[in-house]
Amino acid sequence: MSDDFNQRALDYHAREPAGKLAIHVTKPTATQDDLSLAYSPGVAAPVRAIADNPDEVYRYTGKGNLVAVITDGTAVLGLGNTGALASKPVMEGKGVLFKTFAGVDVFDIEVDAAQPEDFINTVARIAGGFGGINLEDIAAPHCFEIERRLSERLDIPVFHDDQHGTAIITAAGLLNALSIQGKNLADARIVCVGAGAAGIASMQLLVRLGASKHLIHMVDRNGVIHSHREDLNEHKQIFAVDTEDRTLEDACRDADVFIGLSGPDILTPDMLRSMAPNPVIFALSNPDPEIQPDLARETRDDLIMATGRSDYPNQVNNVLGFPFIFRGALDVRARRINDAMLVAATHAIADLAREPVPQSVLDAYGRDHLEFGPDYILPTPFDPRLIETIPEAVARAARDSGVART
Amino acid sequence: MSDDFNQRALDYHAREPAGKLAIHVTKPTATQDDLSLAYSPGVAAPVRAIADNPDEVYRYTGKGNLVAVITDGTAVLGLGNTGALASKPVMEGKGVLFKTFAGVDVFDIEVDAAQPEDFINTVARIAGGFGGINLEDIAAPHCFEIERRLSERLDIPVFHDDQHGTAIITAAGLLNALSIQGKNLADARIVCVGAGAAGIASMQLLVRLGASKHLIHMVDRNGVIHSHREDLNEHKQIFAVDTEDRTLEDACRDADVFIGLSGPDILTPDMLRSMAPNPVIFALSNPDPEIQPDLARETRDDLIMATGRSDYPNQVNNVLGFPFIFRGALDVRARRINDAMLVAATHAIADLAREPVPQSVLDAYGRDHLEFGPDYILPTPFDPRLIETIPEAVARAARDSGVART
Repeated sequence: MSDDFNQRALDYHAREPAGKLAIHVTKPTATQDDLSLAYSPGVAAPVRAIADNPDEVYRYTGKGNLVAVITDGTAVLGLGNTGALASKPVMEGKGVLFKTFAGVDVFDIEVDAAQPEDFINTVARIAGGFGGINLEDIAAPHCFEIERRLSERLDIPVFHDDQHGTAIITAAGLLNALSIQGKNLADARIVCVGAGAAGIASMQLLVRLGASKHLIHMVDRNGVIHSHREDLNEHKQIFAVDTEDRTLEDACRDADVFIGLSGPDILTPDMLRSMAPNPVIFALSNPDPEIQPDLARETRDDLIMATGRSDYPNQVNNVLGFPFIFRGALDVRARRINDAMLVAATHAIADLAREPVPQSVLDAYGRDHLEFGPDYILPTPFDPRLIETIPEAVARAARDSGVART
Repeated sequence: MSDDFNQRALDYHAREPAGKLAIHVTKPTATQDDLSLAYSPGVAAPVRAIADNPDEVYRYTGKGNLVAVITDGTAVLGLGNTGALASKPVMEGKGVLFKTFAGVDVFDIEVDAAQPEDFINTVARIAGGFGGINLEDIAAPHCFEIERRLSERLDIPVFHDDQHGTAIITAAGLLNALSIQGKNLADARIVCVGAGAAGIASMQLLVRLGASKHLIHMVDRNGVIHSHREDLNEHKQIFAVDTEDRTLEDACRDADVFIGLSGPDILTPDMLRSMAPNPVIFALSNPDPEIQPDLARETRDDLIMATGRSDYPNQVNNVLGFPFIFRGALDVRARRINDAMLVAATHAIADLAREPVPQSVLDAYGRDHLEFGPDYILPTPFDPRLIETIPEAVARAARDSGVART
C-alpha cells in the first residue's frame, strides 16, 4: 500500500473518538425512574427470570444479537503473529462489518494466551453472555482444534471465519465460474496452494459440494501433499493423494482450477499455460495475488479470474458471508453453525450472482452494467439483497437440520 | 418491589432490541473506500504501528475509553450467587450508567469460573483490549484476592466497585454528616454491621481519611469482631479490636456512627436510643434498610440519616462515583486506581454537596430548594457538576501520585 493510503488509514483510526466501535444505550435513561428500571432495583426482576429459566436471557439482554470476535493474535492479516494487542484494530474492523452489513453487535476480545488450552478455557468461560463466537486470525493448525473443542463445549455457534468464511465465498464463486466455463465440480482437477486454515476448509467444503477428493492436489511449502509425505499433520493427511506430482508445476499441468491461498507471484505464466482449456484462477493472496490479473490475461484469454482485491472484477470477499451467516444463525438462536448451514450459505451467495443486478447496486459501484458472466461471478458487498436472502437460507438450514432453538 | 414495578422492569428490558447495550460504529462506512480504511487493507497500518509501539493502541483503537464490567455472578445485587449468566442484566445496567453519566464505553463480561484462579486467569488474558476493569458483584472474601492479584498483574485500573465505590460514597457522606453534627472523624465511635466487600473497604477508607481504628467496631453474623475471635479471615482480622462488647446492642451504646451494610431491620429503636447525641445513621441495605427512616425519626430527632433508596433524602448511590472515577483514570491513562485517587474522589464528592445547587438540578428532582444540611449531605446523580469536577480531581491525584501515563 502507498504511504498516502497508510496515512489515511492511520488518520481514519485516530480521529476522535479513537478506534471504530462505541457503546450505544438502547433504552431511555433520562429520568431517575428510567434508571431504576435499567439498574437497581428494577434489574432484579430479569435476573430472577433468567436464574429461573436460562433461555430468558435472550428476552431480557443483548445476548441474542451479540457476537464475540475473538483472536489470539497469531495470524493477523498477512502480518503473522503480531500478538493479541496489535490485532485490536482488525477485530474492531470486523465489528464494523458485522454491524454495518447485518446489524449484529460485536464485542472484540483479544486473548493473550500462548497455549491453545488456555485460549479455549478463556473463551469457554466468557461465552455465556454471547449469542455466537467468531474466531479470527488464529494460526493453523491450532485453529482446527480450537474451533472443534469450543464447538463441542458450547451451545452457541462457533465459527472460524478464516476457515469457513473464506471457504464459502470461494466455493460460491467457483460453482459459478465452473458453470460459465462449462465444467462440473465433480470432474474438475483442482490445485490448491496453501494448506492452512483457509485452504483446508475450502477443500473440505468443495468435497461436501461434490468435488472429487482424488482430483484435488493441495500444495504446501514442501510441494504437493501426496500419500508418501511423512511431514503431514492430521488435517493435511486427509488430502494426501496417490500421485507422481511433486511440484506446483507438476500439479498445474491439465488442472481446471487453481486456488491460491498462499503468497504473491507463485503462479508463473508457464504454469498457467500448462493448465486445461477454460481454466478458473482464484489468486486470493491479498494484497498481492499469486499472479497479477493483468499478467494472467496476457498469458491466456480463456480463463476466469478472481482475486481478493476490490480493484479487479470478482472479489472473493468474506464480508459477503460472515455478517449474514451469523444474522441467520442468531435469528433462530442456533446452537451451532453446521455443514448444512455452510452449504446453504454457499448456494445462496452463488445463486444471487445469477439474478439481475438492481440499479442501486450499479449506482453504488458507478457501473452502467453488471451481468452474470466471467467478470461477475459473485455479488458485490453493498448489494442490499444479501441481507434479504442469505440469513433466511442459513436460518432455514438450521431449522431443517435441527440446530435452531426457535 | 411491587408486581407492577417488576413487570415494568421486565417490559423495559424486553422491548426491541432486547437488552440495554448495542454497538455504534463511530467512523464512516458508506463507501468501499471507507471500508478499505476500516478493515483490509487499511487496517494493517495501525496493526503495524501498535506492534512497533504498544502505546499506540490508545491512538488507533477504542481501548482508552473502554472498560470491561466483569463478574463471576457470585454476589449479584442482594440475590446472592445467581451464576454468571443471570447477572447479565446487571452488568449491562452498569454499562448504561457508565455511558450515560461519563461517556465511558463498556463491554459486559460474565465469567463462568467457580475458582478464583480461573477467574483471575480469564480476566488477565482478555484485559489487553480494555482501558480498565470494573469488577462487580463478586462475593467476599474471594473478591479481595481477585482484585489484589489482578491489580498486580495488569497495568490498567482494576476497581471492585462493590468495595471502593461504596466506600467512597459512604465516606463522602459521612464526612459531611459528621461536620454538620459537630463531630470529628478521628474521634468518632463507629459501628459497621456487615464485614463483606463493602464493609471492609469502607472502614479501610475511613481509616485512611483519619478515623481511629480502635474506635471502629465491625459486626458480622457472629457478633462484634474482637481480638479473641478465632473465626476471622485475614481481612476481618485487621479490624479485630480489644473490647468487652459482643453484640450489636453492646456496640451501639454511645456510638456516634452506625453504618449498615447487612440486612433489613436489625437496628432496633432501643439500640438507636442508646447511641451518643447527634448520631449519624447510614442504613444502606437495599431496598430494605437496617432501620426504616420513618421509625428512626420517630425514635429520635437529633440524627442524620442516609439510605440506599432514592425515595428518601441522602441516597448513598455508587453512581456518584464509578463513572467519574473511571473517566478521570482513563483521561490520563492511569496504570491503576490507587488510594490517593480514592481519597481525591471522596473529597471531591463531599465538597460538591457544600456548593449551591444549580437550578437544573432542582428542576431534575422537582424541588424548590436543596441546601447543604442534614437532608442534603451528598450530591444527586443527575448533577452536571459531577462530570466537571470528580474526573479532574481523580486525574490530578493520578498524576501527582505517579500512576498516570499522560
